[in-house]
Amino acid sequence: MEKYSRNSRVSIITKILTENPNKIMSLNYFSDILNAAKSTISEDILVVREILEKLDMGRIETIAGATGGVRYIVKVSEKEKEKFKDYICSTLSDKSRVVPGNFLYVTDIMLDPEVVSKAGAMLAGNFIKLKPDYIITVETKGVPLAYEVARYMGVPLIVARKNSKVTEGTSVTINYVSGTTGRLSTMGLSKRTLKTSSRCLFIDDFLRAGGTVNGIEDLLREFDSELIGIGVLVDNKEVKKTMAKPYVSIVDYFGIDEKGEIRMKPSTTI
Amino acid sequence: MEKYSRNSRVSIITKILTENPNKIMSLNYFSDILNAAKSTISEDILVVREILEKLDMGRIETIAGATGGVRYIVKVSEKEKEKFKDYICSTLSDKSRVVPGNFLYVTDIMLDPEVVSKAGAMLAGNFIKLKPDYIITVETKGVPLAYEVARYMGVPLIVARKNSKVTEGTSVTINYVSGTTGRLSTMGLSKRTLKTSSRCLFIDDFLRAGGTVNGIEDLLREFDSELIGIGVLVDNKEVKKTMAKPYVSIVDYFGIDEKGEIRMKPSTTI
Repeated sequence: MEKYSRNSRVSIITKILTENPNKIMSLNYFSDILNAAKSTISEDILVVREILEKLDMGRIETIAGATGGVRYIVKVSEKEKEKFKDYICSTLSDKSRVVPGNFLYVTDIMLDPEVVSKAGAMLAGNFIKLKPDYIITVETKGVPLAYEVARYMGVPLIVARKNSKVTEGTSVTINYVSGTTGRLSTMGLSKRTLKTSSRCLFIDDFLRAGGTVNGIEDLLREFDSELIGIGVLVDNKEVKKTMAKPYVSIVDYFGIDEKGEIRMKPSTTI
Repeated sequence: MEKYSRNSRVSIITKILTENPNKIMSLNYFSDILNAAKSTISEDILVVREILEKLDMGRIETIAGATGGVRYIVKVSEKEKEKFKDYICSTLSDKSRVVPGNFLYVTDIMLDPEVVSKAGAMLAGNFIKLKPDYIITVETKGVPLAYEVARYMGVPLIVARKNSKVTEGTSVTINYVSGTTGRLSTMGLSKRTLKTSSRCLFIDDFLRAGGTVNGIEDLLREFDSELIGIGVLVDNKEVKKTMAKPYVSIVDYFGIDEKGEIRMKPSTTI
């Protein structure tokens, strides 16, 4: 079997680690693919670790023991974060985004992989130490962002549904007051979705009054599970709210002023 | 400013290309980050290109001209594909997956980032030459997979909704016969979602009778847009159907036999 140069090995190791965030990859795995001794692979990994840290582009952690190996922890550099927050603020300040009922149209950016992927990396990096068992969201707009956070954290996603489906089996359903419409809404989860005693991180596109968060807490309680944190792209600061759990936003929305300007600021929580 | 070794540069170039699939990255961009001449960066990229091709893990394309640069095209090796299809077949053959009404429970795997990410890479690699403008899906279960395909192809995602929302503005809504329930259903898209004359690739978790595909075609017609292909994780082969567009599945479902065994086979279309 062919031998590869250090350059080549470093490229493949970087690719595999980047594609498998927060997942422990054994040195044997790299050893097999790259036909190199474990000691050689160790040295290759050191190269990757050092340059990622130098450029503030992520961390490589070593896990000792029989089930050990290395894992890549996502990180967005401070400079990139500020640039991204500014970009979202300016994008969302466009007046044509106000739709009838004074709602802000955000669907397009929540479906743009470049935005979602960067926002997901920021939120995952922020919450990585909480070690959630699941990422939870409510259908539909927040699903891609919640999925990205789940991918970067290497844990499953859970999507609470507003209408139960025939293909889901038995569901647990609760009622809550939606912040968007002010009306009583329903959300449910299939009984097979989630193990009891789980720790869940809630991710969504837009946080208004926090009604959805209360709904999620109630729903998780039915599974003897716990909400441990909240991360959103946009926090609506027009509505005062207190959260008992750590919560962060990427940008903050302060409503529309008397001149019709949309007031948007980079968040200081992330 | 510090200079980096070739090893270090190759690592960072690999990471950035992997994280930005199908996006043209200029040599200047790498030059700036890595403080190296463009000719040096070119040589670094050659190292990455060669090892990816050798290990069948993706391609690097060069785009000439003023707006030129390089881009990474996702590819899953044939060996990985076969392994993945076998894994999905064995996971979905578990009898406890049959829920009342003889439906197959697939929600968990559609929310598992490891599964979704690999399936997304396979579908994106398969359809890359069609150059879609958008990836389209219908809420909810298929959203993460469709998002992954969109991310790997570097194009926006569109999610047709079963209920229109106050925050979406004006919508176009059509009726279609759902293959799952056999009943008349509704799906709609916000008028702001999609440019006219767009070419769209439809991605979903489960293809049954194809009613949803017809619905998507009707909906796209309202936007003077076109469906150019269909990709799903599971194709239900119990229902005979002909598709006018290229369509692929990762695994095929042949129903439940008289012993109660779930009949699942790797697809030969991908």
